[in-house]
Amino acid sequence: MPSERIVVLAHEKFPDGAKTALGVMRYGDQAVAAVLDRDRAGDRVADHAPDLDDAPIVASFEDALAAAEGAIDALYVGIAPIGGGFDDSWRADVRAAITAGCDVVSGLHYFLNEDAEFAALAADHDVDLRDVRRPPDDIGVASGRSADVDADVVLTVGTDCSVGKMTAALEIVAAARDRGIDAAFVPTGQTGIMIAGWGTPIDRVVSDFTAGAVEDLVLTAGDGHDLLVVEGQGTIVHPAYSAVTCGILHGAMADGLVLCHAAGRDAIHGYESVAIPPLTDYVDLYEDLAAPVHETHVVAGAVNTKSIDDDVAAEVAVSDVAETLDVPTADPVRDGADRIVDGIVDAGLGE
Amino acid sequence: MPSERIVVLAHEKFPDGAKTALGVMRYGDQAVAAVLDRDRAGDRVADHAPDLDDAPIVASFEDALAAAEGAIDALYVGIAPIGGGFDDSWRADVRAAITAGCDVVSGLHYFLNEDAEFAALAADHDVDLRDVRRPPDDIGVASGRSADVDADVVLTVGTDCSVGKMTAALEIVAAARDRGIDAAFVPTGQTGIMIAGWGTPIDRVVSDFTAGAVEDLVLTAGDGHDLLVVEGQGTIVHPAYSAVTCGILHGAMADGLVLCHAAGRDAIHGYESVAIPPLTDYVDLYEDLAAPVHETHVVAGAVNTKSIDDDVAAEVAVSDVAETLDVPTADPVRDGADRIVDGIVDAGLGE
Repeated sequence: MPSERIVVLAHEKFPDGAKTALGVMRYGDQAVAAVLDRDRAGDRVADHAPDLDDAPIVASFEDALAAAEGAIDALYVGIAPIGGGFDDSWRADVRAAITAGCDVVSGLHYFLNEDAEFAALAADHDVDLRDVRRPPDDIGVASGRSADVDADVVLTVGTDCSVGKMTAALEIVAAARDRGIDAAFVPTGQTGIMIAGWGTPIDRVVSDFTAGAVEDLVLTAGDGHDLLVVEGQGTIVHPAYSAVTCGILHGAMADGLVLCHAAGRDAIHGYESVAIPPLTDYVDLYEDLAAPVHETHVVAGAVNTKSIDDDVAAEVAVSDVAETLDVPTADPVRDGADRIVDGIVDAGLGE
Repeated sequence: MPSERIVVLAHEKFPDGAKTALGVMRYGDQAVAAVLDRDRAGDRVADHAPDLDDAPIVASFEDALAAAEGAIDALYVGIAPIGGGFDDSWRADVRAAITAGCDVVSGLHYFLNEDAEFAALAADHDVDLRDVRRPPDDIGVASGRSADVDADVVLTVGTDCSVGKMTAALEIVAAARDRGIDAAFVPTGQTGIMIAGWGTPIDRVVSDFTAGAVEDLVLTAGDGHDLLVVEGQGTIVHPAYSAVTCGILHGAMADGLVLCHAAGRDAIHGYESVAIPPLTDYVDLYEDLAAPVHETHVVAGAVNTKSIDDDVAAEVAVSDVAETLDVPTADPVRDGADRIVDGIVDAGLGE
C-alpha cells in the first residue's frame, strides 16, 4: 500500500542527474504517477531506468495531472542544482501543484516556506510545503544516551561523499527484514528523509547540536526495533564535511559500522589534492575515534561498483575490498546486501 | 591605548563564575571602568582578582556611570547561564547602557538584536547590539585552502572542554610576540571574539560549514602574520561537541598542534561515563585524523593546573605531561607560554 501518490520533478536531469528522484523511486513506498522532465516528455521511465516501476515522463505538472488517472497527493522536487537553490523554471509546476491541492516536498537549501508566493498559495489551498532540509527547532546537545536503546545500531560510514552510504543502509534494512530481523532505516539526509518520511538533515543542524540531532533520531526509533541502520554522511577525512561525519559517529553510538567505498575512487570528490587513504586507515580512524564514547567495529564492507560495467571486474573489486577489510563485503546494488547482513549478524547484532 | 572603555556585567558571579568577564579583563585591550555584580557592590576587582587591573564593583549600570570618570563605550555581558539565555534581572542594566549611548556586546545564544525592546531602543539611540554568537550569513563550504596562507598555523586542541585552549592560544601569542614573532590569535568562540573584536563562533555555524567558517578566519588573518594561533573548541572524543572540534581540525589545516589538558581530569566534564583516554591516544587521534587533509604533529603541551594549589605539585603535573608527550610543555597561566613557543619554534614554525 503506497504511502502517497506522487509526481517527481526532474527537469532536464532524469535519470542520471536526478539522484533524489531515483532514490525515492527505487526505495520509497510512494506510487509515482509521473515524472516531470521537459527534455524527455513523451518517453517513459522504463526507457531510461528499467529497474524502476514504469510511469510516463511529461513536460509539466498540468500534463502530469492529465496523464495520471486519479488524485495526486504531492509533488516531490527530485533534483538539486549545485548550492541547493530553486530554479525559477520550476515555479509554474510548483504553483500548479499547490493550486491542485497537492503538498510539495523539497530537500533544497532554498525553503519553499520562505517563498512568499508559495507560502501564500499553500495557505489558500490548505496544503503543506514540506521543506525536509529544515531541521526542527528543538534540537539540543547530545546526552550520550543512544547506547541505551533496545535496538542494536549499525552506521554506514564512508571513504568519501557519494559512495552509497544511504543506498547501503536501505539495502541492509531490506535484506535484514527478508531474514526476519525487525530492522529500521534512520535517515540523516534529504533524500533519505523523502524516502522514509521522517528524519533530520544533519548537515543543516548547528554544529554544537550535530551529535544531539542524531541521538534524537536513534532514541525516537530505537526501542521499537531490533536493528537500526543509521545513514552516514560524508567521510571522517573530508576537508569540508568531516564535522557532520564525526557528529554522527559519536551521536549514533553505533554497535557496528559498515564501511562504504566507491571502487576506483582515489581522491576525495571535488578535492583532488586529498588522496583517499588506504581502507585499513579508515577502519582504524573510525574505530579509534568512536571508542572513547562507544566501542565499535567495522563488521562489513559495501562497495559501489557503478563505474565498472563488467560483472567479473566488479566482483574482483568487491573481493579486493573484502580481503583488505577481512569482513563480509558486497555491492549492495549489484549483489544485494545479504552478505553485509551476514557481517552484522556474525558480530552478534540485530538479534 | 585601549580599544574602548567598557563596563562588564557579572551579576552574582564575579569572579569565579564569570569566565567571559575574566577572559576579557585578562586578555582584552579594553579599559574596564567598572564591573556590575549586585552581590559584591562596594568591593573592588583587586579584592577578588589581584592579577587584573583594578576597578570598582557596583550594583547597576547607573552606578557604573556615576563611578566612571568620563564616557563609557560599551557594556559587555560577561556571564552566561547554562543554555545561554538572557536573565531578565539584567534588563535594566542593558536598557540603561543603550539609553546612555553605549553599545552592548553579548555572547549569549539569546540574541539582543532579536529582543524587540532592545532593538527599538538601540535604533533610537544609534548604538550597536553586538551579538558575537551570531555567525555571519555568508559562510560556505571549505575549499581546502587554509594551507595556502603565508603564516604558519598552530591550533590548540584539547582533551576535554574547559581545559584552557583559548587561554593557551592567547598566552602563546603573547609569548611569541615577546620574542619578535609576528603572531595573531584566531578566535573561534564567544569569549575569544569579545577579547579580539573579530572571529566566528564555530559552535553556532551550520555543521556543513564548520570547516569553511574556520577556513574563512585563517584566510582573513593568514597573509598578514608569521604565526596564527587558532583557538580550538571541545575535544575530538566529546560525546556532544566533537563535530565542532573535527571541523576546526580539518578547516584550520594546522602545521602544528598544542595539546591542552586539565591536570587531574579523568572523565569528560558532564559525561562522567566517558573516561579521558591516555594522552598518547589523543596525539594519535588528532594527528591521524588530520593527516589525510594536512599532515600535522603535536609540537607542545599545555597543562591547566588551576585545581592544584601547591606549586611543586603543579610542576610535577606539568612534568608528567611533558614526559608522556615528549614535547615542551607548560602551564601557560602559571609559567607563561615561553616553553610552548619553544616547541612551536623547534618544529620550524613561526619564522
